[in-house]
Amino acid sequence: MKINKQKPIKEMTNNKKTRKSVKKQQTVTPKVKPKKATATSVIKQEKNKDKTLKLRFLGGVGEIGKNMTAIEYGKDIIIIDAGLTFPGDDMPGVDLVIPDVNYLVQNKNKIRGMVITHGHEDHIGAIPYILKDLNVPIYGTKLTLTLIENKIREHKINDAVLNCVNVGSVIKLGCFSVEFVNVNHSIAGACALSITTPVGVVFHSGDFKIDFTPVNGQTMDLARISDIGSKGVLLLMADSTNIEIEGTTMSESVVKETLDHVFSSNLKRRLIIATFASNVHRLQQILDLAVKYKRKVAFSGRSMINIAESASKIGELAIPNNLIIDIEKIKNYKDEQVVIVSTGTQGEPMSALTRMASGEFNKVTIGVNDTVVISASVIPGNEKMIYGVINNLYKLGAEVIYETLEPIHVSGHACRGELRTLHSLIKPKFFVPVHGEYRHLKKHCDLAKSLGLKFTNTLIAEIGDTIELTSNTMKLGEKFPAGSKFVDGVGTEGVDSFVLRDRIHLSEDGIIVVVVGLEEYSYNVSSVEVINKGISLTDAMISEVKANLANSLKKADLKSVSNQDELNQIVRRSIKKYIFNSTKKNPMILPVVMVV
Amino acid sequence: MKINKQKPIKEMTNNKKTRKSVKKQQTVTPKVKPKKATATSVIKQEKNKDKTLKLRFLGGVGEIGKNMTAIEYGKDIIIIDAGLTFPGDDMPGVDLVIPDVNYLVQNKNKIRGMVITHGHEDHIGAIPYILKDLNVPIYGTKLTLTLIENKIREHKINDAVLNCVNVGSVIKLGCFSVEFVNVNHSIAGACALSITTPVGVVFHSGDFKIDFTPVNGQTMDLARISDIGSKGVLLLMADSTNIEIEGTTMSESVVKETLDHVFSSNLKRRLIIATFASNVHRLQQILDLAVKYKRKVAFSGRSMINIAESASKIGELAIPNNLIIDIEKIKNYKDEQVVIVSTGTQGEPMSALTRMASGEFNKVTIGVNDTVVISASVIPGNEKMIYGVINNLYKLGAEVIYETLEPIHVSGHACRGELRTLHSLIKPKFFVPVHGEYRHLKKHCDLAKSLGLKFTNTLIAEIGDTIELTSNTMKLGEKFPAGSKFVDGVGTEGVDSFVLRDRIHLSEDGIIVVVVGLEEYSYNVSSVEVINKGISLTDAMISEVKANLANSLKKADLKSVSNQDELNQIVRRSIKKYIFNSTKKNPMILPVVMVV
Repeated sequence: MKINKQKPIKEMTNNKKTRKSVKKQQTVTPKVKPKKATATSVIKQEKNKDKTLKLRFLGGVGEIGKNMTAIEYGKDIIIIDAGLTFPGDDMPGVDLVIPDVNYLVQNKNKIRGMVITHGHEDHIGAIPYILKDLNVPIYGTKLTLTLIENKIREHKINDAVLNCVNVGSVIKLGCFSVEFVNVNHSIAGACALSITTPVGVVFHSGDFKIDFTPVNGQTMDLARISDIGSKGVLLLMADSTNIEIEGTTMSESVVKETLDHVFSSNLKRRLIIATFASNVHRLQQILDLAVKYKRKVAFSGRSMINIAESASKIGELAIPNNLIIDIEKIKNYKDEQVVIVSTGTQGEPMSALTRMASGEFNKVTIGVNDTVVISASVIPGNEKMIYGVINNLYKLGAEVIYETLEPIHVSGHACRGELRTLHSLIKPKFFVPVHGEYRHLKKHCDLAKSLGLKFTNTLIAEIGDTIELTSNTMKLGEKFPAGSKFVDGVGTEGVDSFVLRDRIHLSEDGIIVVVVGLEEYSYNVSSVEVINKGISLTDAMISEVKANLANSLKKADLKSVSNQDELNQIVRRSIKKYIFNSTKKNPMILPVVMVV
Repeated sequence: MKINKQKPIKEMTNNKKTRKSVKKQQTVTPKVKPKKATATSVIKQEKNKDKTLKLRFLGGVGEIGKNMTAIEYGKDIIIIDAGLTFPGDDMPGVDLVIPDVNYLVQNKNKIRGMVITHGHEDHIGAIPYILKDLNVPIYGTKLTLTLIENKIREHKINDAVLNCVNVGSVIKLGCFSVEFVNVNHSIAGACALSITTPVGVVFHSGDFKIDFTPVNGQTMDLARISDIGSKGVLLLMADSTNIEIEGTTMSESVVKETLDHVFSSNLKRRLIIATFASNVHRLQQILDLAVKYKRKVAFSGRSMINIAESASKIGELAIPNNLIIDIEKIKNYKDEQVVIVSTGTQGEPMSALTRMASGEFNKVTIGVNDTVVISASVIPGNEKMIYGVINNLYKLGAEVIYETLEPIHVSGHACRGELRTLHSLIKPKFFVPVHGEYRHLKKHCDLAKSLGLKFTNTLIAEIGDTIELTSNTMKLGEKFPAGSKFVDGVGTEGVDSFVLRDRIHLSEDGIIVVVVGLEEYSYNVSSVEVINKGISLTDAMISEVKANLANSLKKADLKSVSNQDELNQIVRRSIKKYIFNSTKKNPMILPVVMVV
């Protein structure tokens, strides 16, 4: 596997002609070559003029997580993002959830490429799993591809084609051309996509916020967005995460002020700062403050070390010389001379911070001279875990600074004010909200309406929906097979909804295995064994179960029982009611009847 | 069972003499009679002067939930509250969690009574379960006892002794006298407790906020609290729930303004308002608005109907004539003529609102002319359920108003500003924070310190801790057996930590039952059956399992195997590794070996 640099990368200008002259790609990996715009395909596009553009939603609508949308026109499909989500309480034992891409596998030959808006897990996490069935070329900016590369290396995938795109560039994929437009987000290299299709321009915001004082100085490209808007946009698809919050999201620079205050008011104490490894701008601010306050930095946690290294290699993170020390070396420094930068903001059980808090991390022992900063917000569902970590840190005597107490984190998503700005610049004919639960999507449609869009020009899509677009119309088309695949153990084959149903049943009510030995010929009961797991049975209950069973088997004329299933039913029925009456539980009952 | 009215109830005055002259109780139920203050016991108290007061924490510290504290001096114990908590993700199948009261059962003869601060589940929910072992008299205000009475009636407990106490009264229990002091909270009849003990006064805040414009006009009794404080308080124990929030909690009256706005801006629409049934002040405001806007009120949900009825009977809820209609009758009214008041603010699966949202509640069909108001905050852990309900309501076309969008709910707990007021009025010698996770308790000690208390005069207790107090000292004493009991199915006997461990194992990795038939004498394997639940195995894997097993059994000299356990180990070992290597899962393996 190798990352191809798009050569030559065309920097965007506002000159229309330049923008349209897209150079051929030079992908040097031969295995999968993206189709190029040729004279023939241009003619095809003309012919296709009466066809409709189809948006197919594979994930990320009606949920926050596993973002994936396909855009289809005639014989061409492009995919936007391929994310994962983490399992809910109703998916015990499941490691990850990814979109079901069966539709795409069936239409493999149409796929021209996958364009990735940015490198967060909910946009790239499914890539290693779906590449096995869909080895299509992937396009993204530098950091995005670096994170994907780390991921697929772990999965030992060697034949992926990764094409690096500069912000402001346009790539041509079948009948589509895709421009990567700079936006701000809680990760470097985040882009919106302006996709020129045969029926008009589709603008996809990606995950974004408008940061007028971003750490790397590159404000969201509002001038270019305004230009795209004024030339006419058919459809806007936009991030709905923070639609419930009025105003604007704070700048990443605000965090620097808070962190500076933390450094200056803890001059004699050791500092431990937990943050998302992929938020390289946050990392940069911490490194800068470490320099200012003359502390060494020790990274802790595998993903922190990997990402810092990768980001530094590609120039997204500037690490001054002699700043970083190995975590093993912190014992050679005084508390006030180090800052430990760690993973574990969500209280993940195996993370560095969680293990520090429970006293199981031998490299860092938390004590009364530690100030721990959790520079992240709690992702809904993780409250219990992260507050558990905070409680443990306090018990060990540390001071803890977290979001409830100080502005130690800012969101990466636009609030209502910024969304209004985007809508007003893009001025789309049609609007489809993305990246939100149904309530967010609904509120986002309301906002579009409040800005003058006709309500009939907005649609809310769910997973498996097709939205059909012409240059004048938008409507819901046919449903296509879509949904979730569960990654469990070695892959996605190990678990389906039936297995999950059994797991939930087992976890709530337990299981009783009833082993019945029947004498040959006579079918008299020679032995009964009752094994219960996940449910308590007293000795008296077990005796009662055995008695009930013997009674039922006696009553049934076993010689006339024609098959094993019928026999199992007799066993199950004889026990079920008694167990429910005495325990108010409905355990799984597994009869094993053997003729001995 | 019957509720005893304390006769005569002594209204508190600020006259010290009156306050001390506690009248004997007249409990007419003979079964358990609380000890009365007699001359002898007074002498004993004098003798006990060198003894220590012991606070025993059974629940509610290091957690928000299942509040329960015992205060012990010599031969007397009183219990403050007996609450429940809801099970976490690590307790599958469990219905409720209550405190382990084994210590109290062992010291039953010392217990003089249970005083209840207010009627929320986390303060009264364990009562029906522990009454079976500890039938002690219960003291509380009117609504509190009514809610307890409803609860124990459901549990068919008939011999409970409930003693009604008026706010401002003092009761005498052994060597203790307990004054019930009016506070504001999200339920009527909430009290702080000022407990005079042989070593000094212990002031327990209960759950409280300071509401200067409460719905019933009864502001927290700051004058009395100030008086208690100026006479000297040895120990303050206070609510830490909102210690992380600066300022003061909004008044319940704020909700009325928002609700009035909802009524006035939805004149042509049907209104559905979900709220906690026990928040009778909130109910009262809704009823008042219904009258103002000429709507009928239909209650929905069993607990809503029960509590509204009970609260109305005891005069805590004023229901105007002809206001309430049966939910079945709403079809006879236009949308703008009704407001439905419902349970289900937390998205509880069986609640009225949840069933409305999923279209399974035949009495109310949600549509585009409905405005649904969720007048409550989300209890941490319930986010997914309640947002699921909100998403479903939107899908059905309703408008939904919830806390994120409007001030439609206020907290019942004091923020930092109010806590400062309480500390400053009470001016305790010692402080122990309660009603909070460790981080809350820690921050609450910090606040006490910021107000001038010596840090060594504060202690953080955990469940099972004893705090020992004399008139001059406070220290951690010995640990006593305490913890959680799980209510599961019919009672607390059905599940322990081993059963839970099995349930979690089953839910994450499933179970494989391996049934092996061995020929008599020869011990040749005659049959192998593999049953898997909660884990997928392909046919090829099952064949491989059988082959591995046959191989292992062949290798083992079965005739020399001395017992069933050894045989089971051979079976288990032969499969475990293969299953892990091929699935990366560790299912429970249950061998059943039979000689046939």
